[in-house]
Amino acid sequence: MIEPINLHADRFFSSDIIQRDIARKLYNKIKDFPIVSPHGHTDPKWFAENECFSNATELLIQPDHYLVRMLYSQGISMSALGFGKDCEEKELDHKKIWQIFADNYFLFLGTPTRTWLDYVFVNVFNMSEMLCAENAGNYYDTITACLQQPEFKPRALFERFNIEVIATTESPLDDLKYHQKIVDSGWSGKVITAFRPDNVVDPEFEGFEENLQRLSVITKTNIDTFEGYLKSLQVSREKFKALGATSTDHGHPTARTLDLSNDEKTALYLQIRSQKFTSQQADDFRAQMLTEMATMSLEDGLVMQIHPGVYRNHNDFLFAHYGRDKGADIPVQSEYVANLHALLNKYGNDSRFELIVFTLDETSYSRELAPLAGHYPALKLGPAWWFNDSPEGMRRYRQQVTETAGFYNTVGFNDDTRAFLSIPARHDVARRMDCAFLAEMVSDHRLTESQAEKIAVDLTYTLVKKAYHL
Amino acid sequence: MIEPINLHADRFFSSDIIQRDIARKLYNKIKDFPIVSPHGHTDPKWFAENECFSNATELLIQPDHYLVRMLYSQGISMSALGFGKDCEEKELDHKKIWQIFADNYFLFLGTPTRTWLDYVFVNVFNMSEMLCAENAGNYYDTITACLQQPEFKPRALFERFNIEVIATTESPLDDLKYHQKIVDSGWSGKVITAFRPDNVVDPEFEGFEENLQRLSVITKTNIDTFEGYLKSLQVSREKFKALGATSTDHGHPTARTLDLSNDEKTALYLQIRSQKFTSQQADDFRAQMLTEMATMSLEDGLVMQIHPGVYRNHNDFLFAHYGRDKGADIPVQSEYVANLHALLNKYGNDSRFELIVFTLDETSYSRELAPLAGHYPALKLGPAWWFNDSPEGMRRYRQQVTETAGFYNTVGFNDDTRAFLSIPARHDVARRMDCAFLAEMVSDHRLTESQAEKIAVDLTYTLVKKAYHL
Amino acid sequence: MIEPINLHADRFFSSDIIQRDIARKLYNKIKDFPIVSPHGHTDPKWFAENECFSNATELLIQPDHYLVRMLYSQGISMSALGFGKDCEEKELDHKKIWQIFADNYFLFLGTPTRTWLDYVFVNVFNMSEMLCAENAGNYYDTITACLQQPEFKPRALFERFNIEVIATTESPLDDLKYHQKIVDSGWSGKVITAFRPDNVVDPEFEGFEENLQRLSVITKTNIDTFEGYLKSLQVSREKFKALGATSTDHGHPTARTLDLSNDEKTALYLQIRSQKFTSQQADDFRAQMLTEMATMSLEDGLVMQIHPGVYRNHNDFLFAHYGRDKGADIPVQSEYVANLHALLNKYGNDSRFELIVFTLDETSYSRELAPLAGHYPALKLGPAWWFNDSPEGMRRYRQQVTETAGFYNTVGFNDDTRAFLSIPARHDVARRMDCAFLAEMVSDHRLTESQAEKIAVDLTYTLVKKAYHL
Repeated sequence: MIEPINLHADRFFSSDIIQRDIARKLYNKIKDFPIVSPHGHTDPKWFAENECFSNATELLIQPDHYLVRMLYSQGISMSALGFGKDCEEKELDHKKIWQIFADNYFLFLGTPTRTWLDYVFVNVFNMSEMLCAENAGNYYDTITACLQQPEFKPRALFERFNIEVIATTESPLDDLKYHQKIVDSGWSGKVITAFRPDNVVDPEFEGFEENLQRLSVITKTNIDTFEGYLKSLQVSREKFKALGATSTDHGHPTARTLDLSNDEKTALYLQIRSQKFTSQQADDFRAQMLTEMATMSLEDGLVMQIHPGVYRNHNDFLFAHYGRDKGADIPVQSEYVANLHALLNKYGNDSRFELIVFTLDETSYSRELAPLAGHYPALKLGPAWWFNDSPEGMRRYRQQVTETAGFYNTVGFNDDTRAFLSIPARHDVARRMDCAFLAEMVSDHRLTESQAEKIAVDLTYTLVKKAYHL
Repeated sequence: MIEPINLHADRFFSSDIIQRDIARKLYNKIKDFPIVSPHGHTDPKWFAENECFSNATELLIQPDHYLVRMLYSQGISMSALGFGKDCEEKELDHKKIWQIFADNYFLFLGTPTRTWLDYVFVNVFNMSEMLCAENAGNYYDTITACLQQPEFKPRALFERFNIEVIATTESPLDDLKYHQKIVDSGWSGKVITAFRPDNVVDPEFEGFEENLQRLSVITKTNIDTFEGYLKSLQVSREKFKALGATSTDHGHPTARTLDLSNDEKTALYLQIRSQKFTSQQADDFRAQMLTEMATMSLEDGLVMQIHPGVYRNHNDFLFAHYGRDKGADIPVQSEYVANLHALLNKYGNDSRFELIVFTLDETSYSRELAPLAGHYPALKLGPAWWFNDSPEGMRRYRQQVTETAGFYNTVGFNDDTRAFLSIPARHDVARRMDCAFLAEMVSDHRLTESQAEKIAVDLTYTLVKKAYHL
Repeated sequence: MIEPINLHADRFFSSDIIQRDIARKLYNKIKDFPIVSPHGHTDPKWFAENECFSNATELLIQPDHYLVRMLYSQGISMSALGFGKDCEEKELDHKKIWQIFADNYFLFLGTPTRTWLDYVFVNVFNMSEMLCAENAGNYYDTITACLQQPEFKPRALFERFNIEVIATTESPLDDLKYHQKIVDSGWSGKVITAFRPDNVVDPEFEGFEENLQRLSVITKTNIDTFEGYLKSLQVSREKFKALGATSTDHGHPTARTLDLSNDEKTALYLQIRSQKFTSQQADDFRAQMLTEMATMSLEDGLVMQIHPGVYRNHNDFLFAHYGRDKGADIPVQSEYVANLHALLNKYGNDSRFELIVFTLDETSYSRELAPLAGHYPALKLGPAWWFNDSPEGMRRYRQQVTETAGFYNTVGFNDDTRAFLSIPARHDVARRMDCAFLAEMVSDHRLTESQAEKIAVDLTYTLVKKAYHL
């Protein structure tokens, strides 16, 4: 028996009538605001070349590590999902892969992945039946056929999604040609880049030394000295700024920062370049480089983001055979108070500098991050991230952060995704959860309705644009 | 003024009428499913010999460390509760001990202990007045008289409780004679054992070396070499399997695992057997033995359970005078991502292997365990355990686990108890809390009612049987 | 548009009508109980000299680090708030500072600071308009004028606030002259001291060696030996007791305790006095001194409080220029199980001794502190503290503590504040949140209404007086 898709107008709002009615009113005030997406991982090539997406499986399943990980956790092999080198017996029939996904769609009950997908099915592809084993083939065909239509090309969807601006993420080794092409095309859509230098500031990154050589070539800067190396990064940042970047992003194992003397920095750099360094020295270098990036941010005005606390590629077998971003990144405990001390003491009191910190360790919300963000002028707190980009995760975030940091030391929502079609769905969940949280505060008289309305608008739009200098 | 016992039909359901009505409907679908109890500590002797339980105090108070700890925390001495060596002035009058308990029953307000006991009073002993100082004597007499009746014997209660299968826990040094006797008796009740080898794999366990000698004798295996030692454990596991065991259980201080080379393992074993080893070597041995147990599980199909993270016998005085399991075990912070890396990298991708992990550190739910269980095919997440086997503990578990691991990487409920009479009460709380959680998800349109119904049945019955190979 | 202040009679109660009505009833039973404030930081000079408070800014803004930190976090400089040495360009016009505060009052939406202030504006100063930029001047003038009236003097407010007893906090170096003056004055208000010896037991405290010299002089005791040093502390404690103290308070970096041998203690003391000690030795000394304080508590009956887990003065610049208590203290992760082991093993089983432990690390509630408090007779758990002294913080506290420790191993509310006027507001929030929590437990049938009523009274009044020997 096929059921209709469950996308109720009041979804995520409390069933308490008082709260629900307030949430509805708040949501109606903000639901039509344009999407501001200051941090994400969509591919600029899509918007530069504006070609049709291929099919339902290649667009919606294979690139989505949230989705792949859950199927894999229940014993579905990577090859059955179409991954693997050519010599293996991987599934090549995309429709069969879609059928496997549909057969197992029940696994996603209660997860945000299902919420986002149902939203896409209804609002992008106009489906009305809930996806299941029986209608999988029809689903695949319908979506794939849609994708061949002009109104489903990247730029058309961008406009339909009411995106005011979206940031992608590139490394200093990227030539930014797609961003240049977008600019040159005269298209009105605003797609900007963001500067993510992990591969040239983390000595333990794969191919680090080769990356530095490439950086030197690209920036036409001699990097034999630490000064030269810093200069090359400055040159690269300028190039990013010229293509719209307003922020940098740093995905380090920890939030550790250091503020070494010039002599120490120089010595450490030469040690790292000698390619004979300890794991501790690599960590020191990463820690020092966060502070260097902050120094540059004060100069060039790029907002700095730190995303720490993930054990990348925990599954050695999976990484060896199928590579990165297949769902085997696992959060670990994170410390912010001692780790950010060096950086915050150097620049935390300067309100021209702006640092946005994220966490996957929710224990740091009330204990460390809200107290830090509620004190340092330079520090703001990023939204609930990755595994916590979910209704319950967002609720816990507001519950644990607001009383100490208020609403105004936070920066609105990040979708942080490469799943382009899910972007409106993700922003919609965030808006609904903010309204649900505010509605509860109004319902027990911690806020008035007019205060909540103002805050809802600020969380959805004003704070994002301000925090990211957009 | 004596009040009636408060065992409302809607207990633990939200007072929100929409949620309450959904919860009621869900609960009515699952409340009569038989109890599947895959992990617990009841005494097989009860079911083998089927003798009457003695009296209210010896059955309900003294063996229950949840209960003893709370009374003790408020200054009631162990001797007043009937504990201690004979030379001491311990209370021998069970009725007086029951009176002390009744006088202090208010201490348990708001705790699951009181919920379970009230359920037992009503549903097993047909009491209707709330226990208090005034009716304590009558309570004691009524319960104790009941216990002399045939319908209150262990097997009769087992049947009345609608238990489909229950697992006890024994060590490799146990002769399993009671399990054998149950099988031989022809009784239809299914009581199986589970293999818990802590006393022969943890070098710091009391009497470890003697335990190994006994293991060697019992399994008729020479354990001078590491191979021989492993062989003896395999032999023992086979004996457990023959008496119905489908699982092993490992109560280690941490979840740390290692995967050493053969030479390292052999050397470490000899070091341990020399009885001159460091605390670090003992920890390495425990860590390696978890991996060895996983190897054996792949061969013999026993499901593996790890219960880490408890500081056992924190109170030296209490331990010295009154022994283990008196309420002085305290949870500590636990780490899973680095600790499980060796084991999961060896076997985590093999869906023939099944590892169920528990935690007392709730901070690991959303940060570590849900992400791990939502990725590795071999890993499932055990239910809210021990101190968290409670309404709020269960709610937090589902709220923090579901969005990343879904429902289908969890394994249903464990009562984990030696308090036999409380088993239906504990399963009832778990069923109610699952229904309350699902009802909230239906009420804010994250699930449909038919989805929630299916999940409720799976959490109560299907997933347990599947996870534990029952 | 100026709005009225939002101080609804049902604030903090659930909008669910069933819960709200129960909460109302419970609150009506307890709202008029006198305030018992066993732990705080008001200035005894106020009550001794009973002079008028100066003006709105000096009374309500500048001493309140909750308030200053939030303004500072949004880029408002310390000098604009009137802080700094005279040479700087600090704002001297208190009315202008009040205007800045009013302009930024929206920053406090959703925080307890705003709740407390609105309560003070309405209930102490009879304001009805919500503070905003437009009415800031009038607000300042009205409050400042009030403060010149006799009915706004400290003793009058004390009586109006219905305070039964309040404890301040002094160090052994304090001459307690204001406390003596209060006693001598014959005023009926009960203001007692509490013994906080951090500055003479922490070798890393600023001026530690000089502090010891002063302690020796004040107590007329030779402190060249460890015995002498302990004797001087005993003498000091007696002096505090004579002025009403019933408790000691210890603000250590961690909860670590040690129980060294006499030889070790003596050697450690001499090392510390030599002023050549390592950071580890300083930590050992602090840890040992907690145990020594416990020994003295057993003798003199003072209740012992430990407040660990804060990184003090995280912002070096702020500390150097503006000193302590300006909002730059940040909580850190805290461990209690291993750290309290030495102390609890020595005295934890002795119910004549009473230790109240606090935390800023909420992860320890369910994992460590509730299990410890639910076992050791000597241990009680302090209320949600500092950053967690907030509606959500209190809710999390009860949700995570109650099921394991019950209500009766907690000690009621502490306001812990130097903001005298906010004391009734803070107690009111605590009473409301306890009632809201209890109402939920009644609404889902975990408690009866009469049980909840009894507990509400105990949490508000009975348990506080008992725990603090008042």
